[in-house]
Amino acid sequence: MRNLQGRLELCSINTATLGHREPLNQTIERIARAGFGGIAPWRREVEGGDVPRLARQIKALGLSVTGYCRSTYLPAATSAEFSANVEANRAALRDAAVLGAQCFVLVVGGLVPGSRDLEGARSQVVDGISMLLETARECGVPLALEPLHPMYAAKRAVVNTIAQALSICETVDPDRSGFIGIAVDVYHCWWDPELTASIATTGQANRILAYHVCDWLHETNDMLLDRGMMGDGVIDLPAVRSCVERAGYNGLVEVEIFSAQNWWQREPDEVLAICAERLQTVC
Amino acid sequence: MRNLQGRLELCSINTATLGHREPLNQTIERIARAGFGGIAPWRREVEGGDVPRLARQIKALGLSVTGYCRSTYLPAATSAEFSANVEANRAALRDAAVLGAQCFVLVVGGLVPGSRDLEGARSQVVDGISMLLETARECGVPLALEPLHPMYAAKRAVVNTIAQALSICETVDPDRSGFIGIAVDVYHCWWDPELTASIATTGQANRILAYHVCDWLHETNDMLLDRGMMGDGVIDLPAVRSCVERAGYNGLVEVEIFSAQNWWQREPDEVLAICAERLQTVC
Repeated sequence: MRNLQGRLELCSINTATLGHREPLNQTIERIARAGFGGIAPWRREVEGGDVPRLARQIKALGLSVTGYCRSTYLPAATSAEFSANVEANRAALRDAAVLGAQCFVLVVGGLVPGSRDLEGARSQVVDGISMLLETARECGVPLALEPLHPMYAAKRAVVNTIAQALSICETVDPDRSGFIGIAVDVYHCWWDPELTASIATTGQANRILAYHVCDWLHETNDMLLDRGMMGDGVIDLPAVRSCVERAGYNGLVEVEIFSAQNWWQREPDEVLAICAERLQTVC
Repeated sequence: MRNLQGRLELCSINTATLGHREPLNQTIERIARAGFGGIAPWRREVEGGDVPRLARQIKALGLSVTGYCRSTYLPAATSAEFSANVEANRAALRDAAVLGAQCFVLVVGGLVPGSRDLEGARSQVVDGISMLLETARECGVPLALEPLHPMYAAKRAVVNTIAQALSICETVDPDRSGFIGIAVDVYHCWWDPELTASIATTGQANRILAYHVCDWLHETNDMLLDRGMMGDGVIDLPAVRSCVERAGYNGLVEVEIFSAQNWWQREPDEVLAICAERLQTVC
């Protein structure tokens, strides 16, 4: 496993970690100044802005873009809505290309509101991803399918385990084109009894496109916005990274923390300093 | 699949559904009067009371005991503590036998507080269950290992999928003695992409000992105490029960709802009436 001590160039900050409190150009500046090697911005910060200019700023500061967050949810009640969702993702993929993103993160969406058809939603997800794969190839930006914790199955993502995500990758891309893989986020998968085995199967296909860290707090008070800083929770972070790297992943380690009551209340530079310290000591 | 219309004798109420607001003898009376065929009491209502007397009351009213809730958590920081946990479960198994319970529900416990050793906790669970199996046989009360939703992995149970629970059953009981199986609770497993496949494998071994229903609310506001009434959420209940019965389960359908802000605020008889109606129409 790589030693991250003194290697902040191997580390990236997902801008959600700072709570989206400043314009993206300031966040870019801050993250570069703190010495990180990468950034993962969100569409809400990018869309409607001067995308090429942001891309130039990121490049000039030597940051890589470890991911562009995130897809419009795919499952829909009507085919017109479904098509609109796919189109919104195509537009985002074009921005991802301008930004030079290493992947476009797919958070696929939950059940159609009012529906109990989990299989149907999963099937729409496979269809939507198939349609996006061609655009990904044209844009040169791979799709990183992110399995979300099962507690988000109803509202945010019907893809909930690494094994399931990998199976979708094989279905839509049996030739392993390099344009679809997975994002492994420790928060979503740390509990999985099949974690080690599932990650081990990714090696041959080079399916891991991103690796996200944070921590699961023993006392978690909110299902969405109470993620912990690495080291403050129960996840054996070195064990997971070791698996991921044994499977061939050699990209950056990206910090993604949603924390309304704690980290989003602190000064951005303080948060970045603590991320840097924890990345080098407990990840 | 069995039709539950007019068949409340096939339905059971877990006493947690009523919020543990009354002494157990009143709850038993209420559940019998409402026409249900079974009850699943909790140790907090039983221990320290006159257990044989409660057992006689339950029997006289014609109720079966679909489960006795629930085990003391197994993983511990010291071997003395671990042994004490096993002993506490042995004592509970003896009460389960007095009550005539069809199974003793194993909620196995989370990580040892302060520890990140998930594998270690899982290994302690297997050891503890092996030790309890002999007592279960002596008492004539099978152990029903209940996989809990992954969001409880840290604090309540390191057994989180049906496949994992079944694998533990095979490890500790390769001869399929009938004294260990699983409790399938829709709340914990509805999201699992392997749900249908996992349940289908239980048939040969007759491993399903209990089947619990409630619902997952689209808007879930609390990770523990915000379960929904059947029909109010997103779970395709007939689909799950159909799987479970195809695998050979012919026991009662037990309602278990933790709901601090809604159902536990209502009159117990109202809750029971709504349970009865929903069991017959949407389960």
